[in-house]
Amino acid sequence: MGDLHWETKLSYTTESGIQIRGYDLAGLIGTIPFPSVLYLLYTGDLPTPNVAKLMDALMVASIDHGPGAPSTLAARTAASGGAPLGAAAAAGLLTMGKYHGAAVQDAMEAIQQVVELSKADGDLNRAADTVVADWRKAGRRLSGFGHRQHKLQDPRLDRLFELAREANVRGDHLQAARAIEGALKKITGKDLPINIDGAMAAILGEINFPTTLANALFMVSRMTGVLAHVNEEMTQMPPMRRIDPVDYSYSGPPDRELKS
Amino acid sequence: MGDLHWETKLSYTTESGIQIRGYDLAGLIGTIPFPSVLYLLYTGDLPTPNVAKLMDALMVASIDHGPGAPSTLAARTAASGGAPLGAAAAAGLLTMGKYHGAAVQDAMEAIQQVVELSKADGDLNRAADTVVADWRKAGRRLSGFGHRQHKLQDPRLDRLFELAREANVRGDHLQAARAIEGALKKITGKDLPINIDGAMAAILGEINFPTTLANALFMVSRMTGVLAHVNEEMTQMPPMRRIDPVDYSYSGPPDRELKS
Amino acid sequence: MGDLHWETKLSYTTESGIQIRGYDLAGLIGTIPFPSVLYLLYTGDLPTPNVAKLMDALMVASIDHGPGAPSTLAARTAASGGAPLGAAAAAGLLTMGKYHGAAVQDAMEAIQQVVELSKADGDLNRAADTVVADWRKAGRRLSGFGHRQHKLQDPRLDRLFELAREANVRGDHLQAARAIEGALKKITGKDLPINIDGAMAAILGEINFPTTLANALFMVSRMTGVLAHVNEEMTQMPPMRRIDPVDYSYSGPPDRELKS
Amino acid sequence: MGDLHWETKLSYTTESGIQIRGYDLAGLIGTIPFPSVLYLLYTGDLPTPNVAKLMDALMVASIDHGPGAPSTLAARTAASGGAPLGAAAAAGLLTMGKYHGAAVQDAMEAIQQVVELSKADGDLNRAADTVVADWRKAGRRLSGFGHRQHKLQDPRLDRLFELAREANVRGDHLQAARAIEGALKKITGKDLPINIDGAMAAILGEINFPTTLANALFMVSRMTGVLAHVNEEMTQMPPMRRIDPVDYSYSGPPDRELKS
Repeated sequence: MGDLHWETKLSYTTESGIQIRGYDLAGLIGTIPFPSVLYLLYTGDLPTPNVAKLMDALMVASIDHGPGAPSTLAARTAASGGAPLGAAAAAGLLTMGKYHGAAVQDAMEAIQQVVELSKADGDLNRAADTVVADWRKAGRRLSGFGHRQHKLQDPRLDRLFELAREANVRGDHLQAARAIEGALKKITGKDLPINIDGAMAAILGEINFPTTLANALFMVSRMTGVLAHVNEEMTQMPPMRRIDPVDYSYSGPPDRELKS
Repeated sequence: MGDLHWETKLSYTTESGIQIRGYDLAGLIGTIPFPSVLYLLYTGDLPTPNVAKLMDALMVASIDHGPGAPSTLAARTAASGGAPLGAAAAAGLLTMGKYHGAAVQDAMEAIQQVVELSKADGDLNRAADTVVADWRKAGRRLSGFGHRQHKLQDPRLDRLFELAREANVRGDHLQAARAIEGALKKITGKDLPINIDGAMAAILGEINFPTTLANALFMVSRMTGVLAHVNEEMTQMPPMRRIDPVDYSYSGPPDRELKS
Repeated sequence: MGDLHWETKLSYTTESGIQIRGYDLAGLIGTIPFPSVLYLLYTGDLPTPNVAKLMDALMVASIDHGPGAPSTLAARTAASGGAPLGAAAAAGLLTMGKYHGAAVQDAMEAIQQVVELSKADGDLNRAADTVVADWRKAGRRLSGFGHRQHKLQDPRLDRLFELAREANVRGDHLQAARAIEGALKKITGKDLPINIDGAMAAILGEINFPTTLANALFMVSRMTGVLAHVNEEMTQMPPMRRIDPVDYSYSGPPDRELKS
Repeated sequence: MGDLHWETKLSYTTESGIQIRGYDLAGLIGTIPFPSVLYLLYTGDLPTPNVAKLMDALMVASIDHGPGAPSTLAARTAASGGAPLGAAAAAGLLTMGKYHGAAVQDAMEAIQQVVELSKADGDLNRAADTVVADWRKAGRRLSGFGHRQHKLQDPRLDRLFELAREANVRGDHLQAARAIEGALKKITGKDLPINIDGAMAAILGEINFPTTLANALFMVSRMTGVLAHVNEEMTQMPPMRRIDPVDYSYSGPPDRELKS
């Protein structure tokens, strides 16, 4: 052990094994679903069945948002210049900045502040008014509300909130998110409905997910979609293509129903 | 529709919905597991139940390999210089090059060549000898075999191959991978056992996964671990730390068993 | 001109020419030195001869800081995993975060605040005391002072300040930087001498360089060194090397003098 | 000195100094121009005055190519998503792939092959025919010739070749590049004039620049322009902007002449 010795609480490997937070990785394979192993790595424990379902739902909800998302366009542009798969995907990952993807943590912090503040008198709406006013005064962007495309309601929202209720979460963070939505309407006069970042933030708050890893969940999930777009660009498109950010159409399988 | 109009077969969005390969994303949430939606995005169809189990297993198998993996060290170093979460993770992703992670596609191509070549006379071993000799002659690195730490056998291998057998895959790619292992021993005199890249390659070959997205599967999964390490570095470690690549120890939860 | 039409003040190209801030690029080649064309791009005008000399000096000062700089280690680690040249260099660039390289802008803002504040009574030391106290109170890191290796004085400092004096700059930003150094000593009790970030910040303040591009100057220059290290790693070192952050030595040309 | 000890031939630092290839960095500052210190780092020696002029010219020639270059668009897209300066610039750097920027090395190798092959009979044109045919047969992209915008002649070319002649280079690589241009016309029937990558490759060949660092020269230079565009995007444009790749115009200083 030298001067530079350091410690990690996450994982270790030996010649014959890999241990994740104390569990043998070989034992997790085929037994614990991927989103639950992510939860194990990020929180230190395996999720309850209800939380496991929510983790899976949140990861599916963020997996892709079509070819016009900034991260997708940047990744396709990099691929078009000749970047290999991982480098092009990295360009996409780097685009997930404070306005796009890396906003879940901020939304989670705002929602938590409302929950905390409401504990004195139980009034979430008053707490939301205060938090929204404070953030605006401090010039801090309140992420998680409003979407440039889904102006009325994010299509993923109802389903996520329904699953959260089925999972019997407490509900205070979900309500706080709605209270912020109301406060924003009151203060700005604009409809800024909860978006996918805000919904993730509210649900992650319900399950005590670490705020500093909230964006990580989004990043892992969205990398999936970004890599699909990069692959399509690399295998189907001419190089050095000028990629129009709006003038595209979908030519894949037609709309279809899940078989139940 | 202008001069730059282009098409995608992956997904599209409207003001009220997001469609992934023809399926409404809201309907997938909470119904189809995340690794199966990844499979949908990458192949165009939902997996069978057996393939769905394998997809989940492969993603869990790659999720983390301890703090000494090059991608983890690069990402921690970036975080230590003050990079934010996504930028540090991107440094990790960029490290997943031809020697580390971005090797699954190469292994898949070698295994497929052996399977194809063996079709004439049914002799996988002879085909493996030929392919190994050809790649060596062409100076092409044969990825997927040998590991600097797991010298005898990769601890994830038995479990993955067991699951593949349970899933009733044909088995020709698994056997071809073993045949390459044998050919490498014969030709180089060294033990170069199938590693995680090779195992992923063999199983992805069994389920006809697109070769150009083989590395993507690894990247999505391993980003999960990289982000956990970045978060630990950002929240627990002093900035501008000199990060020793071997002198570390694990101080997390002690070894424990999964409750059955 | 469609809905998405946008404008840039930087440059444009035609089939027969490239214009940079109004100048024909072909005419700049071989006539205006590279650091001066950088200045043109970043400020909109060509520098005076004195400023041109300072730009060149600042770029040379930042070009490399040996193999132990975090950006260099991250880039070498990426190269060791098999990343190509540009991807490995990007890992280095991403490491230039708030503690390493991306600190010039912060230092520039602190120095400018001191200069502004001193205008009332002409007392730079008092202004520095106030600014240092304010930043500490706000929990904001005051970059540009102190170095983990060059504890007494950064070796690039004397030369840069000498050149600044030769260039006949006003000197208020240089003095403000010294005043902050003094204030830090008074308030923290520690010697935190002006480092290369602080020196760049002071000189860039003297020549009214845009603060939002202060880190860019460092990044362009340091990318030069990072790429040299990546190339050495790719061409001279075995892949998947465990890269020790301190246990290395120099085996290049022995110390030598510039011929005058 | 432990098991992981390693060596570099590039540079080292002490508490009181920084040495670049044996030279004290403080002595280089203000004495040796930045492109010459780059040359020192990349080759091990300071350039002759003629080579120093060419290095500066090559760096100026690559510094920017307007807002429509793929690297610029990717970087602006990343900035628009909220990426900070360095992360957005990294997205641009990653876009400099085999079709855009990272092509100088390939062009240099083709030109060198022609020069070598011609040594037998002194016939550059015959050598070029052979090399072009070989590369096409091998399915290898011959970079450095043809440009999607500058279809007749790259506007930077005449000036660079004029400077090369003034620098009294041998000229065989310049002639070999012209010979490849001719061979491409003969074989493909298309006009594929030498582009900036090809011109850089030819001149770097004349001065025996290391092929593995040819793209690095381009990357350092072009990062300058990319960072200017990122800064404009961050400071002048609304976030989450849909960035049209062709529908833009220039609104900076009008065309003007260099004062002589």
